[in-house]
Amino acid sequence: DISQDIDHILETQSALAVDLGGTNLRVAIVSMTGKIVKKYTQANPKTFEERIALILKMCKEALSDAVCLNCRILGVGVSTGGRVNPQEGVVLHSTKLIQEWSSIDIRTPLSDALHLPVWVDNDGNCAALAEKKFGHGKGVENFVTIITGTGIGGGIIQHNELVHGSTFCAAELGHIMVSLDGPECMCGSRGCIEAYASGMALQREAKRLHDEDVLKVDGITDMKNNEPVSAVHLINAARLGNSKADAVLQTAGMALGVGIVNILHMVNPSLVILSGVLASHYQSPVQQVIEQRALPSARSIRVLTSDLEEPALMGAASMVLDYTTRRLY
Amino acid sequence: DISQDIDHILETQSALAVDLGGTNLRVAIVSMTGKIVKKYTQANPKTFEERIALILKMCKEALSDAVCLNCRILGVGVSTGGRVNPQEGVVLHSTKLIQEWSSIDIRTPLSDALHLPVWVDNDGNCAALAEKKFGHGKGVENFVTIITGTGIGGGIIQHNELVHGSTFCAAELGHIMVSLDGPECMCGSRGCIEAYASGMALQREAKRLHDEDVLKVDGITDMKNNEPVSAVHLINAARLGNSKADAVLQTAGMALGVGIVNILHMVNPSLVILSGVLASHYQSPVQQVIEQRALPSARSIRVLTSDLEEPALMGAASMVLDYTTRRLY
Ligand SMILES: [Ca+2]
Ligand SMILES: [Ca+2]
Ligand SMILES: [Zn+2]
Ligand SMILES: [Zn+2]
Repeated sequence: DISQDIDHILETQSALAVDLGGTNLRVAIVSMTGKIVKKYTQANPKTFEERIALILKMCKEALSDAVCLNCRILGVGVSTGGRVNPQEGVVLHSTKLIQEWSSIDIRTPLSDALHLPVWVDNDGNCAALAEKKFGHGKGVENFVTIITGTGIGGGIIQHNELVHGSTFCAAELGHIMVSLDGPECMCGSRGCIEAYASGMALQREAKRLHDEDVLKVDGITDMKNNEPVSAVHLINAARLGNSKADAVLQTAGMALGVGIVNILHMVNPSLVILSGVLASHYQSPVQQVIEQRALPSARSIRVLTSDLEEPALMGAASMVLDYTTRRLY
Repeated sequence: DISQDIDHILETQSALAVDLGGTNLRVAIVSMTGKIVKKYTQANPKTFEERIALILKMCKEALSDAVCLNCRILGVGVSTGGRVNPQEGVVLHSTKLIQEWSSIDIRTPLSDALHLPVWVDNDGNCAALAEKKFGHGKGVENFVTIITGTGIGGGIIQHNELVHGSTFCAAELGHIMVSLDGPECMCGSRGCIEAYASGMALQREAKRLHDEDVLKVDGITDMKNNEPVSAVHLINAARLGNSKADAVLQTAGMALGVGIVNILHMVNPSLVILSGVLASHYQSPVQQVIEQRALPSARSIRVLTSDLEEPALMGAASMVLDYTTRRLY
């Protein structure tokens, strides 16, 4: 009938976005304009079977909610840690940060169960796509984004396109090494910026200081009983004048900054966008390291903090939404 | 007359190639097939005026010789250390390795004096062009070259083109930092691979060991009286079992390897070509570091040693020679 037709016309074209991080598994309904209509968050399961089962369960719930919310889902976009072949929709390899997540075809089980087209890419690459469509990267031909969460991811846009590399291992910016030795990384190497400056790295250092009983300030910690020690405690302790906590953050900022200068000396973008919960903490130390250590020709770079709430999730959505106007791969 | 016409037809189309390095200034006549017909070498003068004067003097001598050698010079290609704007033919900035060499228009004085078109690019970028036209890079869509001489330069070919970056500072591969501190570099920073693994860095370490009287092996040095200490002495001492000399080379190889892994994690080429006098020494340590520290998806990279005699010089020539078939910039 006529009212149904009008309802149908008024439906919002939307994407189902999935973000698989080192800690959380998130699913969202994202509208064409970049609005997150509804979001679902769970801990990312430790095994392959549970993970796939939970993704499907959350997606089905979201699809059912989408009908009531009058959102027409055009497809599923998946952002995940690890190296991804986006042409095949396959995760080639992940570090220990996401276990049992190598040589995994994500596209087939999702498209079979959900009857929707599925796009998959690396989380840092998705973050770059999100900046390009919705954020500071709009209209910028060459830029780089670094997203700091549990781990560190990145994406490189050159001539308005993602750089995937010859074996889909480009823009693995978390694994830029800034030390010949340095702290151990989840990837098996040492001295990666992820091992210095990620949420996980700061938590490791917070625990170390806590175990040495030096995380508290003036005899006071801001920790409740049995609360797990986290990067937040480290940042608070540093703010309150704890010099050991401050030294950890200084080293983290220096490591991230040196890693970014390496990016400038390799691909020389015109803009670097920092995103993730720690972005605002890192902007000023990164700018300082660029002043001190970049070649004069590279110092004119702009460093901005993302104003997107969920870059990886938004980028996952953008793969779906952009497909309606152009072919992506 | 007829014999003159035939002579003219039989002339070899050639380029005048100029290479400005940290130590030497070289000029060569290079034929279309990549043959160095004649080469001229002088020490690179320390001042701007002397340098420009010597370039012009050497080019004029070469042009005059070219007539006798029946080479028709199509243009001049200049390879130089430092950041170059190839569209303008201007050196934007050099490190202390080449003094008085920032904001220098090379194209105008050369084309005015020699009445020939002039192309200019960075030495590492020229080395990449040479590999693409004459070397291992032939037909390879994505590769990187690293050239180790007095300093360290590099070039990145992506989608069959040089990556110049937003301010002509891309592929400054000598200034990839692999340490938060590390040895001082000519660029003003610290821990750059140039400060660990260049000829200059090895000479610095050789001098240090010589001054500490530990460069000799079994009481014997292979140095003649008053001979300057060089990287060669370090390499010979290491070969003869000097553990301190060996440790220096180990660290140099490790630093270069970690720098190259950073390249793999950023642009993920399918091939890395090492060139310069130290290339063959570095191939095996670099491959070892890749095995140990690269993400599994990046380990399949090929690492080759260049078989070109003079990559930077040949690349300078290729800018001229390629112009006859296509527009370069
Ligand atoms: Ca990435
Ligand atoms: Ca270069
Ligand atoms: Zn790592
Ligand atoms: Zn440097």
